[in-house]
Amino acid sequence: MAHISLPEGLPGIRGPMAFRPETARPMNLLAEELLHAPNALTGGERELIATYVSSLNDCYFCQTVHGAIAAAHLDGDEELVRRVKADFQHADISEKLKALLVIAGKVQRGGKHVTAEDVAAARAQGATDLEIHDTVLIAAAFCMFNRYVDGLATWQPRDEATYRERGKKTAREGYVSMSREYLPEPAGKV
Amino acid sequence: MAHISLPEGLPGIRGPMAFRPETARPMNLLAEELLHAPNALTGGERELIATYVSSLNDCYFCQTVHGAIAAAHLDGDEELVRRVKADFQHADISEKLKALLVIAGKVQRGGKHVTAEDVAAARAQGATDLEIHDTVLIAAAFCMFNRYVDGLATWQPRDEATYRERGKKTAREGYVSMSREYLPEPAGKV
Repeated sequence: MAHISLPEGLPGIRGPMAFRPETARPMNLLAEELLHAPNALTGGERELIATYVSSLNDCYFCQTVHGAIAAAHLDGDEELVRRVKADFQHADISEKLKALLVIAGKVQRGGKHVTAEDVAAARAQGATDLEIHDTVLIAAAFCMFNRYVDGLATWQPRDEATYRERGKKTAREGYVSMSREYLPEPAGKV
Repeated sequence: MAHISLPEGLPGIRGPMAFRPETARPMNLLAEELLHAPNALTGGERELIATYVSSLNDCYFCQTVHGAIAAAHLDGDEELVRRVKADFQHADISEKLKALLVIAGKVQRGGKHVTAEDVAAARAQGATDLEIHDTVLIAAAFCMFNRYVDGLATWQPRDEATYRERGKKTAREGYVSMSREYLPEPAGKV
C-alpha cells in the first residue's frame, strides 16, 4: 500500500502525479524534452539511459515502463534492453552510447563521480557537449523519478504485457500527450 | 573547469540552465511549485529540506544557495540552517519538520528506504498527505538538481556574501522570476 492516499488504479508515477498535478506538469515537460523531443540522440538511446539508471536505482516501475518504451523505439528488441541493463559493455550498441552509459552510471552514484576522463572518452566517440549534458540530466532526472515512485511506495503491478502496450503508445505520443489521460487541464488555461 | 563548455560567469545550476533553456524552464517551474508557491509548509521549512538533502549529497552550490534562501525566510537565522544540516534532531524546529527531515534523508539514500513507520511518525506530528508528498518530491528533486550541478562540474565560487544576497532575492521573487535573468524568452511565447 502506498504511503499516502493516492488515486486508485494508476500504477507507478501516475498515482502521485494525479494527486499533485501542479508538480506533475513540469515533470512531464522535462521528460518530454529529455526523452521525446527531437534530439541528436535517438529516442531509443535516451530511453536506454533512463532504463539503465532506473535499474541501478532498483525501481521496478520505471525500468519496466522505460524499458518498454526503449524496446518500442528499437523495433521491439526487448533482448537488447535486458542486455544493456545487465552488461552494456557487451551489448550491441554504439561505442558512443557505451561511453554515455558510463557517465550515466556515475551520475546515479553521485555527480562528483563523473571524471574529466569519462567525458573525454565520450567525446572521443563523437559525443557532443549537448549529448553529454542531456545524458547527465537524464540520469539525474531518473534519480528523482525513481525516488518519487519508490519513496511513496506506489502501486507497481507486475504485468509486463500492460507495460509493453503503454511503452508503444508513449514512444509514439510522448509524455505530455499521455499525461492528459490522468491529469486535469491546468486551471486558467486559455 | 566544467565538463562541457558553458556560458561564462553563471555559477552552479545557472550555467547548464542557460546552456539548455528547454530543460531549464520545466526545472524552474518545478522548483517554483515545490519551494515558492503557497503551501502548508512554509518557505523556510521547504528550503531547509532542500538544503539538508543538498548537504547530504555534498553539493556546495545547492546547499549554500538554498541555505541562504532558507535563512532569508527565517529572518536571517543562518545558525539555524547550520544546525539543521549538522544535527537537525537538536535544532530549534518543530517535531513535524524533524519527522519530515527523517523521510527526506531516507529518500536521499533511495526511495525504498522510506518506511511505513517513518510516515506514521510524521503523521503523528500532524503532517498531512500533501506535506509528506511534497517532502518526498523536494528530496527527490534535489537528488536531481545536485547531480546536475556536480555531474557537469559547474563553477561554484566560494563567496558567501553573493549567495546571501541571491538568497534574499530568490526568497522574495521565486525561481521563475529569477530565471528571467539568464534564460531567453521561450520561442513562440505569446
